[in-house]
Amino acid sequence: MKATVTVMLKNGVLDPQGEAVRRALGSLGFEGVNGVRQGKVIELDLAASDRPTAETEVRAMCEKLLANTVIESYRIELA
Amino acid sequence: MKATVTVMLKNGVLDPQGEAVRRALGSLGFEGVNGVRQGKVIELDLAASDRPTAETEVRAMCEKLLANTVIESYRIELA
Repeated sequence: MKATVTVMLKNGVLDPQGEAVRRALGSLGFEGVNGVRQGKVIELDLAASDRPTAETEVRAMCEKLLANTVIESYRIELA
Repeated sequence: MKATVTVMLKNGVLDPQGEAVRRALGSLGFEGVNGVRQGKVIELDLAASDRPTAETEVRAMCEKLLANTVIESYRIELA
């Protein structure tokens, strides 16, 4: 089973990487970009084949390693 | 209009960051993770309100700045 985890900084947490991208886009002539936030996406190829087991496992991975839940939020998609 | 760009290394391109995550998950006791690929996600808040204009613009941003198309592929979602 494949799982996709998207980790983003929470709203209100300063995102200097996103801000750098916004400025770079501006300097390349792309007007009309009001805001940019950058996060990471992690694609996992899991041995577990049933959905509930996979979801529980991936949630534990996020809490323990993949996301810093103090400043980051995460979203899990299973396919 | 909001656009979400997902940038991943192409298949066949070595992903040391993903490999590091896979090993870390293993050492934390998560068995059954066959593979991990890590990429980045960029959320853009655009002034453009019509879909075709926004898509053309975001595609140009990807080609010029957001993705290195030699080794990375990108996916655009508009909402």
